[in-house]
Amino acid sequence: MRAFLVIGNKVVTRPFSLNDLPGAGRMDILCRCVSQSLLISHGIRKDSEIYLMLLGEPEPSKVVRIVGSEVKNLAPDERNAAGLIRKALSMIVGSEWKRSSPGIYVVKKDLGSLLNELSKKYEIVYLREDGKDIRKVIKKLKDPLFVLGDHLGLKKADEEIVLEYTNLIVNVSSLSLQADQCITIVNYELDRIGNNF
Amino acid sequence: MRAFLVIGNKVVTRPFSLNDLPGAGRMDILCRCVSQSLLISHGIRKDSEIYLMLLGEPEPSKVVRIVGSEVKNLAPDERNAAGLIRKALSMIVGSEWKRSSPGIYVVKKDLGSLLNELSKKYEIVYLREDGKDIRKVIKKLKDPLFVLGDHLGLKKADEEIVLEYTNLIVNVSSLSLQADQCITIVNYELDRIGNNF
Repeated sequence: MRAFLVIGNKVVTRPFSLNDLPGAGRMDILCRCVSQSLLISHGIRKDSEIYLMLLGEPEPSKVVRIVGSEVKNLAPDERNAAGLIRKALSMIVGSEWKRSSPGIYVVKKDLGSLLNELSKKYEIVYLREDGKDIRKVIKKLKDPLFVLGDHLGLKKADEEIVLEYTNLIVNVSSLSLQADQCITIVNYELDRIGNNF
Repeated sequence: MRAFLVIGNKVVTRPFSLNDLPGAGRMDILCRCVSQSLLISHGIRKDSEIYLMLLGEPEPSKVVRIVGSEVKNLAPDERNAAGLIRKALSMIVGSEWKRSSPGIYVVKKDLGSLLNELSKKYEIVYLREDGKDIRKVIKKLKDPLFVLGDHLGLKKADEEIVLEYTNLIVNVSSLSLQADQCITIVNYELDRIGNNF
């Protein structure tokens, strides 16, 4: 298994307009991350899942989880992923995971609690620009979960929480890339290992 | 320089609704390709440009060219790129390139004429799933232009035209990936060479 956790620092936690995804606290970034983490051409990565942490108003922090092996009707365009996320955000949620559509779950949970839960099944890896070259570590990873920020990165306090769960900081490029691009590259490097391509 | 040419087999050649990009002949795919070819985090690739070949109704075939070093106000969300392409498609065009906004040009041109023009400044590379591993050839490429298809690939007749301009067929993954994912990976591999990352 592989997984991704993307921190959306200002992404709204209520239903939003599908006609202005950037205006919903940069929901567009998370939508692209969904597509890049789970979709290939005409198919889905059944061994991948993504967690979106939404830290914007009015109810920070909610987490939306999308599971590759279960999700239905996920298309690669931003608006499609946005529709599924919006449906999840229309539900009243507490601290227990709740299913909003096939393969899509939502919960109210802070970063520490989430990582505590995820660290039981995944090896946490923090993606940051000053990290180790991914090619030097990728062969050693087992069931990795990659934590990364949106265009604002991770707040200092959130970063400290992540570093309680890992000391493995990894970088994918000498350039500063967008979150979805990092996910595409991580998947690509993992695919290369898996298939000896 | 690096460049990409994406063939949109059914992408419409008239202005379209920004609320249904997939319905415009899969315009959404081309929009993602624009973003992946030209944008990094908080920045633009000034050494990159993309050509979108639109083969859908009512006026196939139009080409939209977006130049990294010139374009303004390009944001990574699909709707933003779509707005710029729509503006280009609202112009009356003939066989001479016409500027629709800064860094964005449009023309009516068939694939053979376009490749004839582009092969004067680029080394043409055809991205196809049965090609050579990109890692084995990337260091030898000089000013490459990567030709790739949308979800439908390239029609036989179009492929024959491409193969008049190159015998270099390259693949980026053992999986079948989406066009925008291929572009992200090509950029990533080129960045690695350029920076000895």
